[in-house]
Amino acid sequence: MTKRCNKNPIITKYDVRPSNDEMEVLGAFNCGVAHYNDETILLVRVAEKAKDRNGFVRVPVYDSTKKQEVILDFDKNDSDIDFSDVRFVKTKEQLYLTSKSHIRIARSKNGVDFKIDDEPFLSSDYFYEEYGIEDPRITFVDGYYYINYSSSSRHGVFTCLARTKDFVTVEKLGIMFMPDNKDVVIFPQKINGKFCVFNRPVSAYFQRPEIWLSYSDDLLTFGNHKLLCDLREDHFDSCRIGASCVPFLTEKGWLEIYHGCAEGDKYCLGALLLDKDDPSKIIARSEQPILYPEKPYEVDGFMPNVIFSCGATVDGDSVHIYYGACDECICLATLSVKEILNSLEC
Amino acid sequence: MTKRCNKNPIITKYDVRPSNDEMEVLGAFNCGVAHYNDETILLVRVAEKAKDRNGFVRVPVYDSTKKQEVILDFDKNDSDIDFSDVRFVKTKEQLYLTSKSHIRIARSKNGVDFKIDDEPFLSSDYFYEEYGIEDPRITFVDGYYYINYSSSSRHGVFTCLARTKDFVTVEKLGIMFMPDNKDVVIFPQKINGKFCVFNRPVSAYFQRPEIWLSYSDDLLTFGNHKLLCDLREDHFDSCRIGASCVPFLTEKGWLEIYHGCAEGDKYCLGALLLDKDDPSKIIARSEQPILYPEKPYEVDGFMPNVIFSCGATVDGDSVHIYYGACDECICLATLSVKEILNSLEC
Repeated sequence: MTKRCNKNPIITKYDVRPSNDEMEVLGAFNCGVAHYNDETILLVRVAEKAKDRNGFVRVPVYDSTKKQEVILDFDKNDSDIDFSDVRFVKTKEQLYLTSKSHIRIARSKNGVDFKIDDEPFLSSDYFYEEYGIEDPRITFVDGYYYINYSSSSRHGVFTCLARTKDFVTVEKLGIMFMPDNKDVVIFPQKINGKFCVFNRPVSAYFQRPEIWLSYSDDLLTFGNHKLLCDLREDHFDSCRIGASCVPFLTEKGWLEIYHGCAEGDKYCLGALLLDKDDPSKIIARSEQPILYPEKPYEVDGFMPNVIFSCGATVDGDSVHIYYGACDECICLATLSVKEILNSLEC
Repeated sequence: MTKRCNKNPIITKYDVRPSNDEMEVLGAFNCGVAHYNDETILLVRVAEKAKDRNGFVRVPVYDSTKKQEVILDFDKNDSDIDFSDVRFVKTKEQLYLTSKSHIRIARSKNGVDFKIDDEPFLSSDYFYEEYGIEDPRITFVDGYYYINYSSSSRHGVFTCLARTKDFVTVEKLGIMFMPDNKDVVIFPQKINGKFCVFNRPVSAYFQRPEIWLSYSDDLLTFGNHKLLCDLREDHFDSCRIGASCVPFLTEKGWLEIYHGCAEGDKYCLGALLLDKDDPSKIIARSEQPILYPEKPYEVDGFMPNVIFSCGATVDGDSVHIYYGACDECICLATLSVKEILNSLEC
């Protein structure tokens, strides 16, 4: 039985202080999750925009030459610039984003009531992060909390890696996957001596996002790429798909909670059951979503009808899924692992 | 001084036998080159289409389930299918290509007069090669001729690896780069103990092709990705760019002959001079193309105004550049290495 937290949404943009006086928070949503000491830690994607200025569309970017955040102002009357989509500014040379994300820590003793740091934990530091960093996942493996996140720039959407031992200091390690590749999730243990990682390349030409598995010795070099999970016609995941949560072991194999959506439809969560020793083998896959947008905060918001998760915690038969709703706020739902397994055709 | 071969084009589609009776050769163009024994070997991209059938648009694909080449016939009157671009068939679910390439060997004693094998040397064998394999480069390193080529499928444009010792037997080794990534070129020696490889990811969102360098222990796993060479405004390479030939060492550093084009303009070749010990450092870059379309066979053809090279041989001060002209035929031009170096601003 799906039990949504009665305090949903548990984090909203009103709980987050802007990163500086020039900025305004648009949303606090997709978050990775980990247990650290006696706390539940969320790494929250905070999206901001520059405060309005009359007559201009404003673009916050990280200037890697100056090594600082700057705001570019584009004249709304400049007919050479395409402002038709509010999310973008398109000049002849370059595509810009009108919002910019960074990653903030939220801490809780009970997994429900969170306090959010006033300062960013991770923000843009490199040219390939100039448009912001997004959608962190946290995997505890080999003594570190590894954090992977997608970074955007004029060069495309990369996935990058950082790690911490204490959620106080953090070290960026560099690029994991070349553009465009996101929805990367690291398994919590090595398999046959290798790190195993979900990822999702997208082709500029063929535009078919699909889940792949890649293997690594060091989480920075990748090979042995295998197509895991294709789109499915006439299903909730016919149009877009990607790994969501860090997978966890059940008696039947690895359980991966992923996201999918059909054309013009809702972003839902589904489940994949993968072979324990060879996760490139799918044992079962949800016919129906295990969680789909139906509550007001999931249906109505910045991007309506979106449930998107980057992490869950497992506690006996309960899986606590933290998810971004409508690219705006953070919610929590608890499901039974046994019921998810029973819902899979296996 | 640029000296085009007086026998240009040295290979045309009329020199190539179709791979089977169902097919028709459209072009024999972008080719890798190597010296083997006393011969010059070209690995030629041969593009074919299925023979016409009244009322249908035909799509040749490799069916990886049946493990055979098949031809899909699409009814021209089916209004659900988009036939507006002759290169594509676009159904609701999938984008197909109307032509399909494989790789054929051509051999020559003098580097000018070539005889082409009747059988393909490399063709599609895997699901990620279903739409064909293209644009081979050959690098002799560590005792093997390594061949990398781009492969197309509904999953995107990959770069894959094969190797041979004798150009008779050949072994496919798998995927080097996830989609979309092409214009991959392997350096002919390891640098600081690592294989060093040009590649060119393309973002679906930002559409800025650029040349990157990546490093590898085995040519199948890659990391340490570095942006080498961005687009340049108001130059011949302002819109598209990619590595072309296998780089070679000169007294001033690595010389890489690459391709570039401006918007709506000609595909030209330029040169990059890179630091001998750290090729991620650019010493100099062509202000003007070193070779650009001007001859009738370069200006007028299947894709007009295209000079695209995948390989060159070096002989003293002469660099013999083999290039595809108009995505249709193969030509040869000889340039002076010294003059190329002098033309660079360094």
